[in-house]
Amino acid sequence: MESMEELRERLASLEALERASAVLSWDEETYMPEAGGPARAEHLARLAAMAHDMLVAPETACLLDASSVRPGSIDSAIVRVTRRDHDQAARVPTSLVAEIQRHASLAHPIWVHARERNDFAAFAPVMEKTFDLARELAEHLGYRARAYDALLDQFEPSTTSKEVDGIFAQLKARLVPLAAAIRERARPGEDAVLHGDFDVAEQERFGLQMIRKFGFDLARGRLDQVVHPFETSFSRDDVRITTRYDRTYLADSLFSTLHEAGHGMYEQGVAADLEGTPLASGASSALHESQSRLWENVVGRSLGVWQHFYPELQRAFPGQLGSVPLDRFYRAINRVKPSLVRVDADEVTYNLHVMLRYEMEQGLLSGEIPVADAARVWNDKMEDYLGIRPPDNSLGILQDTHWASGLIGYFPTYALGNVLSVQFFNRAREEHPEIDEEIATGEFATLRGWLEENIYRHGRRFDPQDLVRRATGGPMATGPYLDYLERKFGVLYGLSSPVSP
Amino acid sequence: MESMEELRERLASLEALERASAVLSWDEETYMPEAGGPARAEHLARLAAMAHDMLVAPETACLLDASSVRPGSIDSAIVRVTRRDHDQAARVPTSLVAEIQRHASLAHPIWVHARERNDFAAFAPVMEKTFDLARELAEHLGYRARAYDALLDQFEPSTTSKEVDGIFAQLKARLVPLAAAIRERARPGEDAVLHGDFDVAEQERFGLQMIRKFGFDLARGRLDQVVHPFETSFSRDDVRITTRYDRTYLADSLFSTLHEAGHGMYEQGVAADLEGTPLASGASSALHESQSRLWENVVGRSLGVWQHFYPELQRAFPGQLGSVPLDRFYRAINRVKPSLVRVDADEVTYNLHVMLRYEMEQGLLSGEIPVADAARVWNDKMEDYLGIRPPDNSLGILQDTHWASGLIGYFPTYALGNVLSVQFFNRAREEHPEIDEEIATGEFATLRGWLEENIYRHGRRFDPQDLVRRATGGPMATGPYLDYLERKFGVLYGLSSPVSP
Repeated sequence: MESMEELRERLASLEALERASAVLSWDEETYMPEAGGPARAEHLARLAAMAHDMLVAPETACLLDASSVRPGSIDSAIVRVTRRDHDQAARVPTSLVAEIQRHASLAHPIWVHARERNDFAAFAPVMEKTFDLARELAEHLGYRARAYDALLDQFEPSTTSKEVDGIFAQLKARLVPLAAAIRERARPGEDAVLHGDFDVAEQERFGLQMIRKFGFDLARGRLDQVVHPFETSFSRDDVRITTRYDRTYLADSLFSTLHEAGHGMYEQGVAADLEGTPLASGASSALHESQSRLWENVVGRSLGVWQHFYPELQRAFPGQLGSVPLDRFYRAINRVKPSLVRVDADEVTYNLHVMLRYEMEQGLLSGEIPVADAARVWNDKMEDYLGIRPPDNSLGILQDTHWASGLIGYFPTYALGNVLSVQFFNRAREEHPEIDEEIATGEFATLRGWLEENIYRHGRRFDPQDLVRRATGGPMATGPYLDYLERKFGVLYGLSSPVSP
Repeated sequence: MESMEELRERLASLEALERASAVLSWDEETYMPEAGGPARAEHLARLAAMAHDMLVAPETACLLDASSVRPGSIDSAIVRVTRRDHDQAARVPTSLVAEIQRHASLAHPIWVHARERNDFAAFAPVMEKTFDLARELAEHLGYRARAYDALLDQFEPSTTSKEVDGIFAQLKARLVPLAAAIRERARPGEDAVLHGDFDVAEQERFGLQMIRKFGFDLARGRLDQVVHPFETSFSRDDVRITTRYDRTYLADSLFSTLHEAGHGMYEQGVAADLEGTPLASGASSALHESQSRLWENVVGRSLGVWQHFYPELQRAFPGQLGSVPLDRFYRAINRVKPSLVRVDADEVTYNLHVMLRYEMEQGLLSGEIPVADAARVWNDKMEDYLGIRPPDNSLGILQDTHWASGLIGYFPTYALGNVLSVQFFNRAREEHPEIDEEIATGEFATLRGWLEENIYRHGRRFDPQDLVRRATGGPMATGPYLDYLERKFGVLYGLSSPVSP
């Protein structure tokens, strides 16, 4: 046990370095004056290098070998994930780790300005470098079939792009006919009530009120404004979520806030005794996205939740919504309409946005798609998948931050998260049929309690796939998710059920 | 030169750790939810331990010995200050460094609440521990005459408490008669115009406008709100200053803002080629305070500066100041009146506040003053020095953050800074007699240029005493400062000159 204590001690310092980096990254996107960027990039790169050196040091390997742990204990989970982290990190030179971190920091403001000014040419060299570094990283990490797998594995341990292909094929098979059926019935202006002039302070106040009721603990976190919303945590008791406000469009900030609060509740719900260990965070990106998408969509875009919250929203915006009935509002937030921007997409077309990026990332990584052509390819694929063509790159390839910040391999986890969100929600409702009624009265304790008990508190203690099995009784499966979409949108658009052949 | 490069590389990583800690500390006082405190304290303690270990490691000592540098070069200064830092740090166990940092973090919210609730009993155990740790630190650092010297030396290298005693005696000899002479002439209500209802947003707007004109570069820094104002820097291009607002009293925030901007301009003015080295900060605490006090008082409370800014301030607060003539405002911001709170003190009585704390710190450190008696001793001394007794501890011993955050030995540097501020200002004006006229027209480039050239850009390159000599042609001397006070307040209160015997 002495080795285990030494290992824990070492990992607590590693954790301190990583949480410090998270604070620096959060500040970089929230409050840092832009001039501070180069020094910040340097500091982050050096912290990343120190953390990497600490992880791959022979001392860590020795402690891992020497630590004897009881199977099934927290310590055994610490040893398992640390060995995995160590073995992966050990394949990558420190200099590359530092370079990737430095690039991500320096790229962020360049992306912000390029997006603002609709200037893809200004962003292209940065994106080129992001993919060069990702390629180099994949080569060091190693992979069996495709380089992309090495990157995906960073976010979704033990999931391959072949598996993702399979899941995406299943999604397409039923979502494409569903979208087509809806298209025939859709009327223009279904979401007109969400456009107008919505005071930003009032948007913020309402958003905070809603996520507080969901269960995001504002005494153990905060909400700040950024260009591209994200969640990060400095401990379970200090979880930072971010959003952005569009004065002319209510849904953008509102659902971003709910989304990030879902991530935030996951981190706030990790068991206190995992604090300071490598287990103190979400199990994987897909698991994390399952929570953000669950609260954003399965709960946040349900009719039930708005039975409770809509009167309050009307009071917040009486001029804009006072005379709009709940039913029209509910249709507006669920209108299915091919959109240019992923984060504004409805539940039916959202996954198409993800598939587009997933395909492009593989093409960009392999070199099949040269960066110089990427904006055009993006627009072509948008026409292909969604039947609309971005009028400019800010609404096209420049909309997401991932290809600046180096998150190559992350996108598929949004779709996996969608799939899981419904599996989890269904299981919780099976065990607690009162959840629907509670939601309609603004009560979320039972649902949140189930999620905490079955997912949040475990942190990284179990492998993602193991955690899914424990929580739902089976593996990830697209059926429940597709059923949910067909049922929900079948009702909304008066479709004969089932739509799919 | 290879060793020197390796040393610089090592020190740049050390710098990254220290700047990261600064970001965490800044966040702790500005935005962190209070629940995040314990984990933050843990992370800061571990970062401090890592930085300490890196500094005292045998590798650092070897590189210092092996580095051959040209005398007078930047590298030689790096080796000099690193050797000093290393030798000091090597005497202190890592565990104590971590413990001091952990305590400072944990103590902060306890101090905030105790001050809010006027509850000295809640703060006493924290203060006890602060002094226990300080005593332990002093014993490890070592000293010749008094333990206090070891602590003072951390802030003011090579200055002893005996020297401080001498300087304080000189100050007392002329300030006590000056204060007495003023007391006879003072009328009540001299600063009534500063009390009222001053919109906080407008206070902030005006303060920002004023410090921007002084030369604080808001593109390379920010101003945030805190309980106890401070300045910190994450690089020369990211300097954070803080202030607090009192809606009922204009002077508190205004002069705090000018004070912190003075610190901030110093950090922003450090030469770019010192970035990432241990030279990239102010030369000492007294040097730093000389700059904050110069901009707060010598410039900020001068008649000249308000000839330019007062009309703007009147426009910001037309109801409160529209009909108040400049002369009355100038008298208000310079009214000499024993005050309970140090940061609100006038220039004449300010040093008495410092002396009180200086004496108390020595008594608390030696054990002569038990913490249990400290509030009473504070109040007695206030009566002794200033003829007023705090009605409660929030306006007494709980007003400053220093005895929570472990800054024992810092207070004297405010008085030393006062002394230096006038020496520097006089020298700049000797070389550039146009400075007075420029200030009266809202121009500060010549003054700032002189300070940058002679002080700011050098960072820690020269010893503080050496830097004073280079800039002023002589050592620190109280004469010019006392002459300045006697002249300024002689005119304001119509005293026969000289007041001192």
